Amino acid sequence: MGQYVLAGDLGGTNLRVAAVDPGGRILFRAEAETPRYHDETKIVGTAAELARRCRFQFDSDPLSFGFAIPAIMDAEAGRIFTSPNLPELNGSQLAESLENELNVEVALENDANAAAIGEHWLGASRGFDSSICVTLGTGVGGGIIIEGRLRRGPDGTAGEVGHICIEPLGRECGCGSNGCLEQYASASAIVRMAREILPEFPESPLTGKDEFDASTLYDLGSRGDQLCIEVFRSVGEYLGIAFSGLINVLNPEVIVIGGGASAGWDLFIEPLRDEIRKRAFREPAERARIVRALLGGDAGVAGAAHLAFARAGVSDVLKPNSFNT
Amino acid sequence: MGQYVLAGDLGGTNLRVAAVDPGGRILFRAEAETPRYHDETKIVGTAAELARRCRFQFDSDPLSFGFAIPAIMDAEAGRIFTSPNLPELNGSQLAESLENELNVEVALENDANAAAIGEHWLGASRGFDSSICVTLGTGVGGGIIIEGRLRRGPDGTAGEVGHICIEPLGRECGCGSNGCLEQYASASAIVRMAREILPEFPESPLTGKDEFDASTLYDLGSRGDQLCIEVFRSVGEYLGIAFSGLINVLNPEVIVIGGGASAGWDLFIEPLRDEIRKRAFREPAERARIVRALLGGDAGVAGAAHLAFARAGVSDVLKPNSFNT
Repeated sequence: MGQYVLAGDLGGTNLRVAAVDPGGRILFRAEAETPRYHDETKIVGTAAELARRCRFQFDSDPLSFGFAIPAIMDAEAGRIFTSPNLPELNGSQLAESLENELNVEVALENDANAAAIGEHWLGASRGFDSSICVTLGTGVGGGIIIEGRLRRGPDGTAGEVGHICIEPLGRECGCGSNGCLEQYASASAIVRMAREILPEFPESPLTGKDEFDASTLYDLGSRGDQLCIEVFRSVGEYLGIAFSGLINVLNPEVIVIGGGASAGWDLFIEPLRDEIRKRAFREPAERARIVRALLGGDAGVAGAAHLAFARAGVSDVLKPNSFNT
Repeated sequence: MGQYVLAGDLGGTNLRVAAVDPGGRILFRAEAETPRYHDETKIVGTAAELARRCRFQFDSDPLSFGFAIPAIMDAEAGRIFTSPNLPELNGSQLAESLENELNVEVALENDANAAAIGEHWLGASRGFDSSICVTLGTGVGGGIIIEGRLRRGPDGTAGEVGHICIEPLGRECGCGSNGCLEQYASASAIVRMAREILPEFPESPLTGKDEFDASTLYDLGSRGDQLCIEVFRSVGEYLGIAFSGLINVLNPEVIVIGGGASAGWDLFIEPLRDEIRKRAFREPAERARIVRALLGGDAGVAGAAHLAFARAGVSDVLKPNSFNT
């Protein structure tokens, strides 16, 4: 049996842990619902249990445990600042608690940064020196790779593409600012924007519905519904405004779009590209490929695994490879 | 006589060339008016003449010639894409022409990038690993240093901080977009903004004046003129909006503000800092020092000199040092 690491991905809904080999293959998976509304001990307990289920499949211990979590943190110090969607993690010592449970070194990483590393290792930005990975989920996350290295910054907080201001007097954002990209391109923003313009579309099948989600809007839009087409056009324009700034400032080779709301790709990509053509300088705009993420829900696990190998000092054995399950 | 390089800085008004030693000391300066409205041969001729005047002061040839110019370019390939303020340079072979004239290797760099390198070597961002240098002049230029290296990008176009969109439906920009930072924080924008609100301030000493410049506005503002205070407050807010995005995305240690319009510092710095406190994440916002440039008009020459030493392969002899004239 060869070397492997454990790689975890903590979402608002599910907590997943996998055993991953140096080629990026997932050898075993374990998954549970994320225990919510408790202190962090329940999360630690569940993660440890899933880790043990993975461990039992092998003759040897994992090299280390990489863990992608939805939080602003100093990853190198293992210090969590804030987790807007899992506030029970605010200020918690997650890495230390897990290390005590499992007796294996634990490396934390912001989930969007982990996705950027995963796509860079095995996915859509593989082989590119500089890339920006944008995750359209409940919020809008981001990870930036420059000269092959994740840009963390001295506080480990870099990459927050969702909190670029694109409307100075726009919607209030959970971060305390107004008009952040997250308020115009996340799954929750998409639903809100649909509600806002619903009165202008009295014929819409959504009229009178109390509950609908972003994927319903995408399904309707792809069948020609004008309200939904309009919403995703706005999403594309706002993404294009933010991406144009990133292209002018960073001249990246590729921008990868992932996350649940990237399902709306066919509806937002042309308005997005139009905006970049209009707003960004020609050479870097032509350079920057805008592509869909390839790893889907496994990007975070892939990045966490890469991080775990790097932490174990075996990053040199990693070769880009297909990411098989 | 020790080693030296030639370092040039081409502005819309003046063209300067200096001889610089490995410690960053300017040993000799030569300056002329920038020859305008011709093809690039006049610029090449003037630069070559100034370079020869420097060369005559020494017993030996310069190691190389670094040249900061106001253009979007692929610096490594010596290829100029566009120069909005000196269109005679568009597509020109400036480096090659100068090399033929002078028989010395010529390295070009965007002027704002050169200023960032200069401030990083000898000025306000010295000793910091990551910095953003923003130049408020006729336009708004920028240079980004990450992990001690200038971010040029595959097209050499990175760093265009002035072309971050902060008002999607805002003023038309020369770059083809709308609402770029440059339209709200450059010297020319400051004058335009003052004209726009002048009717609201009938008591203003500017009323009825045909011509005034940004430094007049700063002088009036520092003596309490409400119109001018209002204009620089807006400048600070707009800079703060753009800087908050940069702080959230890049987590820099320091943002350096230089250029002629940075004279308005006392009037714009508090509104700028307020905006960052409101809009950026707390840890990176507290990290990012916002400071004034230290090298003034010599930042471009300093950066060009650093580049010239690097091109000559003696970058290892460079130690941070005071930049004396």
